[in-house]
Amino acid sequence: MFAPAYLDHNATTPVDERVLDAMLPYFAQQYGNASSRHEYGRAARKAVDTARQQVAAALGAHPTEIVFASGGSEANNLFLKGAAACLKPGVAAVSAVEHPCVRLPARELARQGWTALEIGVDDEGRIREDAFAAALEAQPALWSVMFANNETGVIQDLAELAERAKASRGWFHTDAVQAFGKLPLDFRSLNAAGVHAMTVSAHKIGGPKGAAALVLDKRVELRPLVSGGGHERGLRSGTENVPAIVGFGLAAELAASRREAAMAAARSLRDRLEAGLASQGATVFGAGAERLPNTTYFSLPGIDGETLVAKLDRAGYAVASGAACSSANPEPSHVLVAMGVEPGLARGAVRVSLGRATGIQTIDGFLTALSATAQALRGLTAMAA
Amino acid sequence: MFAPAYLDHNATTPVDERVLDAMLPYFAQQYGNASSRHEYGRAARKAVDTARQQVAAALGAHPTEIVFASGGSEANNLFLKGAAACLKPGVAAVSAVEHPCVRLPARELARQGWTALEIGVDDEGRIREDAFAAALEAQPALWSVMFANNETGVIQDLAELAERAKASRGWFHTDAVQAFGKLPLDFRSLNAAGVHAMTVSAHKIGGPKGAAALVLDKRVELRPLVSGGGHERGLRSGTENVPAIVGFGLAAELAASRREAAMAAARSLRDRLEAGLASQGATVFGAGAERLPNTTYFSLPGIDGETLVAKLDRAGYAVASGAACSSANPEPSHVLVAMGVEPGLARGAVRVSLGRATGIQTIDGFLTALSATAQALRGLTAMAA
Repeated sequence: MFAPAYLDHNATTPVDERVLDAMLPYFAQQYGNASSRHEYGRAARKAVDTARQQVAAALGAHPTEIVFASGGSEANNLFLKGAAACLKPGVAAVSAVEHPCVRLPARELARQGWTALEIGVDDEGRIREDAFAAALEAQPALWSVMFANNETGVIQDLAELAERAKASRGWFHTDAVQAFGKLPLDFRSLNAAGVHAMTVSAHKIGGPKGAAALVLDKRVELRPLVSGGGHERGLRSGTENVPAIVGFGLAAELAASRREAAMAAARSLRDRLEAGLASQGATVFGAGAERLPNTTYFSLPGIDGETLVAKLDRAGYAVASGAACSSANPEPSHVLVAMGVEPGLARGAVRVSLGRATGIQTIDGFLTALSATAQALRGLTAMAA
Repeated sequence: MFAPAYLDHNATTPVDERVLDAMLPYFAQQYGNASSRHEYGRAARKAVDTARQQVAAALGAHPTEIVFASGGSEANNLFLKGAAACLKPGVAAVSAVEHPCVRLPARELARQGWTALEIGVDDEGRIREDAFAAALEAQPALWSVMFANNETGVIQDLAELAERAKASRGWFHTDAVQAFGKLPLDFRSLNAAGVHAMTVSAHKIGGPKGAAALVLDKRVELRPLVSGGGHERGLRSGTENVPAIVGFGLAAELAASRREAAMAAARSLRDRLEAGLASQGATVFGAGAERLPNTTYFSLPGIDGETLVAKLDRAGYAVASGAACSSANPEPSHVLVAMGVEPGLARGAVRVSLGRATGIQTIDGFLTALSATAQALRGLTAMAA
């Protein structure tokens, strides 16, 4: 089987073998419905409880603050739509670099009489001071600011922003899907700083697709998106996805315990990668900001990102162009547009995101393949000119 | 490991070993995000496409009519809340025996100015002619009537009801979660009869938890519950749960191909079970109606259902009391209340639901255990009196 080198860990990660092993018994042996009141049901309930403790411990939260959902998009929608439904229409402020599953729900609130504000970022992708101050003036009842961006890896100074947002008395949410496993996350201290809700997802940290959590300050009232049997304290009904939740629990535990070593390794490889990219004349987006140690988002002048990604794929390197996790969309990334990146350069954007299995040979091989591919593409362009 | 006989297949089913085998490569090998444009992403997309074809084929639907969701509760909420959000407030009519994940969303529509009607059932659990006619008078814009009930197994004459509902020009949905794999389901002919949407779920048919589908007539406009990356034709954003969807595809195929033989076997065992129950003086709910061949819902006079289920669990038989899939709730089943069952009898309700692995010895063993348990409980009651 042809297995290209996987350099797209911000899109999704392989399920860790230990995590998969932990999940396996819950498919065909301990397969009970966690709401059933017999041996099978109790075993399932116990497994969900344990996973809830693991996720909470990894995030510095209390188990009762964890609301399991099917994925990060659902958890983000649950916060924004769910909290808005319990408030009088007001202002919802989200950053201009949020994932579509935050931007779109915020915009949709307009149908219920809300005003959606997008907080601009500077050319490195950081929330702009003046834009944040302007948003604060509008006294938002809801805030959502990404902890770290999925495309650029740029990290916001979240605790400081939340602290300042306290003046609005609004609920402050952060999409921490990309931050989890890469940065220290402590909900207790974030909550003290003014963060009321935080989204994390299993499949970005070596866990399975199908499980995520909204970590939620219990003062926040939410109307569920999915109502019914009353699961997850009535905030998310539906039979618990026991194997996925079990996998999430262990993946969260492993992610927290491995984080420092994993990120030190990633940072060293990423620096090597970026040194090579610099010598090829690449522009690295957000290079002047604090970034996730595993993420490089770059553009080679005059080369189309989509084309480059396709060629690199054939050369054995799986990387992303523009925004991942989103459907076919030929427009340049909204993140780069918000950063004021000139369209030609934005259309060249390629994201490399490293993971646990990434080694030095892969980085060097990637750089060689990139150089050869870029040279060939420039040759074609020159011939066509 | 103590493994009680599992007689609670309407709550959830073990994942079929073939289904699990089909899922396995998608956790740690072909783990791509189906939206990624590289080898891993394409493999994931192809797997999702294949599963969509399998589910569609098993249901007599077109692949483009399948909207994948994380579970039956989500799919039911998506239909009711999503369709309502695209309509002017009107009347939503649902049967009185719907699962909470239909009843509650219908009631919640009242907040947006809708009127929720509950269509009553007769003492066998079938939609009452007069109640349906009264609902029709109100010209509902939305309908939801269960194909077969999860507790009693009672089957509605769905095609006829949908045909009559055409006069309302409303959208007609059916929760077919319990019907799938047990009754023939052909969306093409149901759609011709006037059914516009149908919910099915993987974990009730030997597939995994975490995958379900809303089969949807494309004329129905829906606002998504989860918006974002635009997955599932914009109706359900979020990274596809590839392994679960792959498992759902094969489980659907197997459920359709095995249905006749499996249900013939279940019917014969169920008849044997009910003959034994009759000799123990049990009342079987809905016994006069057409029912799912695998489901028996009964009560023994003077014996509490919860207590009986707990004792049977210890005796090695996993069965359900009252409503399954719902959280702790000491009230008698709303299904039995709607059927006019007297509260004392309703509180005795125990559901036995058979599956592929159920054999004749389990049935006979269950009857013996039930008889002994009931005798012991009656003895205690007599002593206490």
